Amino acid sequence: MALTPYQQLEQEFRRLHAFRGALSLLRWDAAVMMPRGSSDVRGEQLAALETEHHALLTTPKVARLLERAEAAASQLDDWPLANLREMRRQRDHAIATPPSLIARLAKATSRAEVFWVEARKANDFKLFAPHLAEVVHLVRDKAALLGQSRGLAPYDALLDVFTPGMSTADIDTIFTALSRKLPGLINAAIAVQAEQPPLALTGKFGVSRQRSLAVDVLKALGFPFDRGRLDESEHPFTEGVPGDIRVTTRFDALDPFTGLLGAVHETGHAMYDLGLPQPWRDQPVGRDRGLALEESQSLLFEMNLCRSRAFVQYLRPLLEKYLQVSGPEWTEENLYRHLVRVRRSLIRMDADELTYPAHIMLRYELERKILEGALPVADLPEAWAASLEQRLGIKPGNDVEGCLQDIHWAVGHFGYFPSYVLGAVIAGQLYESLRTERSALDREIAAGQFGGVMEWLRDNVHAVGARLPVKELIKEATGKPLTAAAYLRYLEAKYLEAP
Amino acid sequence: MALTPYQQLEQEFRRLHAFRGALSLLRWDAAVMMPRGSSDVRGEQLAALETEHHALLTTPKVARLLERAEAAASQLDDWPLANLREMRRQRDHAIATPPSLIARLAKATSRAEVFWVEARKANDFKLFAPHLAEVVHLVRDKAALLGQSRGLAPYDALLDVFTPGMSTADIDTIFTALSRKLPGLINAAIAVQAEQPPLALTGKFGVSRQRSLAVDVLKALGFPFDRGRLDESEHPFTEGVPGDIRVTTRFDALDPFTGLLGAVHETGHAMYDLGLPQPWRDQPVGRDRGLALEESQSLLFEMNLCRSRAFVQYLRPLLEKYLQVSGPEWTEENLYRHLVRVRRSLIRMDADELTYPAHIMLRYELERKILEGALPVADLPEAWAASLEQRLGIKPGNDVEGCLQDIHWAVGHFGYFPSYVLGAVIAGQLYESLRTERSALDREIAAGQFGGVMEWLRDNVHAVGARLPVKELIKEATGKPLTAAAYLRYLEAKYLEAP
Repeated sequence: MALTPYQQLEQEFRRLHAFRGALSLLRWDAAVMMPRGSSDVRGEQLAALETEHHALLTTPKVARLLERAEAAASQLDDWPLANLREMRRQRDHAIATPPSLIARLAKATSRAEVFWVEARKANDFKLFAPHLAEVVHLVRDKAALLGQSRGLAPYDALLDVFTPGMSTADIDTIFTALSRKLPGLINAAIAVQAEQPPLALTGKFGVSRQRSLAVDVLKALGFPFDRGRLDESEHPFTEGVPGDIRVTTRFDALDPFTGLLGAVHETGHAMYDLGLPQPWRDQPVGRDRGLALEESQSLLFEMNLCRSRAFVQYLRPLLEKYLQVSGPEWTEENLYRHLVRVRRSLIRMDADELTYPAHIMLRYELERKILEGALPVADLPEAWAASLEQRLGIKPGNDVEGCLQDIHWAVGHFGYFPSYVLGAVIAGQLYESLRTERSALDREIAAGQFGGVMEWLRDNVHAVGARLPVKELIKEATGKPLTAAAYLRYLEAKYLEAP
Repeated sequence: MALTPYQQLEQEFRRLHAFRGALSLLRWDAAVMMPRGSSDVRGEQLAALETEHHALLTTPKVARLLERAEAAASQLDDWPLANLREMRRQRDHAIATPPSLIARLAKATSRAEVFWVEARKANDFKLFAPHLAEVVHLVRDKAALLGQSRGLAPYDALLDVFTPGMSTADIDTIFTALSRKLPGLINAAIAVQAEQPPLALTGKFGVSRQRSLAVDVLKALGFPFDRGRLDESEHPFTEGVPGDIRVTTRFDALDPFTGLLGAVHETGHAMYDLGLPQPWRDQPVGRDRGLALEESQSLLFEMNLCRSRAFVQYLRPLLEKYLQVSGPEWTEENLYRHLVRVRRSLIRMDADELTYPAHIMLRYELERKILEGALPVADLPEAWAASLEQRLGIKPGNDVEGCLQDIHWAVGHFGYFPSYVLGAVIAGQLYESLRTERSALDREIAAGQFGGVMEWLRDNVHAVGARLPVKELIKEATGKPLTAAAYLRYLEAKYLEAP
């Protein structure tokens, strides 16, 4: 029997899925295994496969099949229909940007990245500014084209690439609620914590022991070491596909938590990917629902589940066992104080749970102004300092501590930053539902039993794949529309708790 | 200025080169890093990329460009002309076999591989025989089609895939010369060695120490660890591309030589790949000249250079340093006796330098008879036993020790085996020239100085790439036509040396 247009599309996207898996492995290898001198060779391989992936997605054949399948869409069930919608979205994104613009962006961003590194060395934003301006110019063109194709405002079209279904209006509502509450909460938390500062955790914690500890914790979380790996890299990340998922972290011999919590964070991503709907695993609808939801899973693991008193109960004996530590600074109470310590800091990557949103809201504010042309690139350092002072009451002493700290804009990632905070907000709302539905949650965590949590997440979040837009997914999972309320309740309970 | 058809072909093959590099990394990872449970996912990725590689190579566009470039070939210089010839060869090979036959072969070989494993477990060739017969049937079709396309006899067409430019007639001449001399040489060597058998090397040799030793030796050989890796896998192999070359070996805690010599053997492949002509590295003419020449380089390293008295002089202090061994069994003389020990054995993979060709000649004889239909697959065990007895005077006690020992035929590799012995013969001839031109060769090796050897190989072999057919390449490198004479002189000198 001849295949329907929809079935032919499934075949095309199955092939694209295999390409994406191969690309992911090439990136993983580049960060974890590849010899230092081989990046030029790898760059050629990545470019060739990406170009081919793009070509396969934008053939006239796919366009024709999409039109024919859409014309017969009334005969499709729920899942295939959602799959067809995601196929269309991927194809429209791919075709919206002409190859000449993609090539110019690739050139501009790789030059900007080089000068970003140079500017950081020299601690001088001016070296980077003209190259960033060129990237901004091209991203603006890309946003306009994407917007036309998707019927969205330019910045919303960029958001749509990373977190489909979330608009500037949605983000503004949520960020306004956060801006109203967080400054007071930060002040109060710092005051409460100042009454009993934690004892320092001194010593050297061997990396191979830390690794064994992390493996033990990841196993408890459900990470499948027969279909996944834990390795080390400069920055933690997750690559691979369900069926071969690879997380990394970076261990610090002077700090027993960074490496472990990096691995836990990435395991949140990995468990999401592993829980995606198996029958659709090689189709667009079987993919994750974008960056904000990805980040909600990693943050739920790291922040909500593991930076908690219950987790410390589970962790303390493991620290004793693997790191062979003892003494008054290794009590549950003292360990917990370390895990929830709030400090105003200049660097986003070092920020704690409570001050982190301020860093993101600053970037969201500035990147929109830059793209709209309301803020010239040259004025970025002053605007950065002013915004940070207003939000956290501190000012960067130089460009490296300020607007040169992130690589995102250099590589053209505008519309990316908001997903970090949206992820935290979603995690807060999911966590509230999880607590309501699993009354023994803390006891389970303290016993290192994460099976129930995983099951709930799989049923309510992971297995939905990309069948629903983010907001509907959260509504179905929690029974409520997505707002900042649950997240703020969670932060208040955690950080204003009487010492 | 518009690109010429030839220049457009260069662009097409540049992209194919990147695909081949990506495929190579996927295979490396599958053998070295991949979690055990992920082979299904990897299989899909490999199949998708291979299919796409095949599709890109066989487009009508490439066919048209080849015709137009060939029509204007008189304007091309030496290298581009050879490149065009190799492009044609690759494309003709790819297009000769229709996709339906490729698919049937893929299915038949993967089933045959499963039953090969089962038959080995049960030690019963009959379980494997019908599946091998199916593979033979399809390989016969493939050989006929390849032969038509290349104007070659069917078996010669299979040889042409693995070792371009070597025919059955060439192989018959060489193998006849070997068959005449080797039996007597084996008898004599065993008799000579029986007079002074080596003292056993007992003890446990830690794998990480063996690894450090191997790294030290590979550095001396010139292996570039900044653009390559040494890892461990079940069987040693080389993957990657020049610029990111990856060798593996397998260390045995009870044997200090297997892991080291496996790594040295693979480094022979790696150094060949690294020495290929840099300006042509992403073009067909910049590739190695086929399996026999690849094997000549790995065998030259392992057998001619390193299973030698000079190498033992270099190696002994390293064994002391890394493995902390001492005693009468660690003298140069005793170590050398281990490295050149001759024993008649049933298993090809365990065979020494002198008895190895007999195993290959047996396979060459039988695989030709099978393909011609002169030997029914069901009669393979008896034919195997008879041929081995005639060649080495020993008989397998069962099928696992006999015709079930190699995977090659199960996966459809007919015409592959001869390259192992052709490699040894080529290595023998190159080694004779190398000794003539570098009179201090033994002193260099004893001092761990391999720079001169590498330079000679690069100039005379590696840098030729695929510009010349094998026989011309050897003629240019050594000044003589390729024969078995130098190889036999080398074996006689080595194995009949007075003790």
